[in-house]
Amino acid sequence: MKIYLAGPEVFLPDALSIGQQKRDICTRHGLTGLYPLDTAVDLSAPDASLQIFKALEEMMDAADAVIANLTPFRGPGADPGTVYELGYMAGSRKRCFGYCNDPAPYAERVSRHTTVTKADDNRLIDRDGLTVEDFGLPDNLMMIHALELHGAPLVMPRARSADIWHDLASFEACVRLAAGKLD
Amino acid sequence: MKIYLAGPEVFLPDALSIGQQKRDICTRHGLTGLYPLDTAVDLSAPDASLQIFKALEEMMDAADAVIANLTPFRGPGADPGTVYELGYMAGSRKRCFGYCNDPAPYAERVSRHTTVTKADDNRLIDRDGLTVEDFGLPDNLMMIHALELHGAPLVMPRARSADIWHDLASFEACVRLAAGKLD
Repeated sequence: MKIYLAGPEVFLPDALSIGQQKRDICTRHGLTGLYPLDTAVDLSAPDASLQIFKALEEMMDAADAVIANLTPFRGPGADPGTVYELGYMAGSRKRCFGYCNDPAPYAERVSRHTTVTKADDNRLIDRDGLTVEDFGLPDNLMMIHALELHGAPLVMPRARSADIWHDLASFEACVRLAAGKLD
Repeated sequence: MKIYLAGPEVFLPDALSIGQQKRDICTRHGLTGLYPLDTAVDLSAPDASLQIFKALEEMMDAADAVIANLTPFRGPGADPGTVYELGYMAGSRKRCFGYCNDPAPYAERVSRHTTVTKADDNRLIDRDGLTVEDFGLPDNLMMIHALELHGAPLVMPRARSADIWHDLASFEACVRLAAGKLD
């Protein structure tokens, strides 16, 4: 069974080593991990980004499931590139798993980046007056419930990981879930 | 033809009025707009967020295409909830259209929120050492090329809209594109 390994760790300096660790964990559980950096794209080509997209779409189409790393990236929510891939796999009717190394509710995460207050109509709002989702979920409800209904509920540590980009315990829990459900 | 109208404007205080305007524009072009707030969910129910998810997934499954508002939301990139929906529609093999009222390249957007520098290996990086995508695209390549290959290239104004949440010119351009392609 092939698992597409979506996540913003591809943007880390040691992205290749993390990919190797993730693939090794998959192998130990009898699964094959497909990592986005496993594509052979010439990054100096003028259409490099389009080539990457095509290679990743092909990789997703070849996979039976996705494990998405939804750890907050450059703001209160998950990395949009990763979220696109999670949505694509859900739309493709593949199994969806995900984890997040920061269990804080979304409203708390937003308050780390901007002032959150209560509007006259009782909505929680940010500095721009935009509603802050306040269902007690860690991120936008679309991702959280997609996992719940199309694979397994989001896996999170009890407290924020000391090293949110390198702690793979919740990832491994997802691999275990995937191995069980895809049998 | 039914178009799912994805976007973070559902978080604005005048979300209902924007939805009405979007639906009216669709109607003028012979299309039916499906707006996320058109669902009848009791927001005080304990499982309100799950009910919303189910209603929106049903709405997307009933639609022939999506028009996603990818204007930056609470950070340099698009709203993850909207991006999930774009991915879901692409995975469902529906036509994908999108617009963004801020045409700035992604690296420039990131520099509004954090310090962007060049690493020793020439990668553009943010304060945390994470690579900043630098293909000259306005957002993560997954969304940009998904639109290009599964519908039409991202529609953007030449300069940032004065009112990024209420300017519907690029939205209307998407509706025109959708009406042409779905005929």
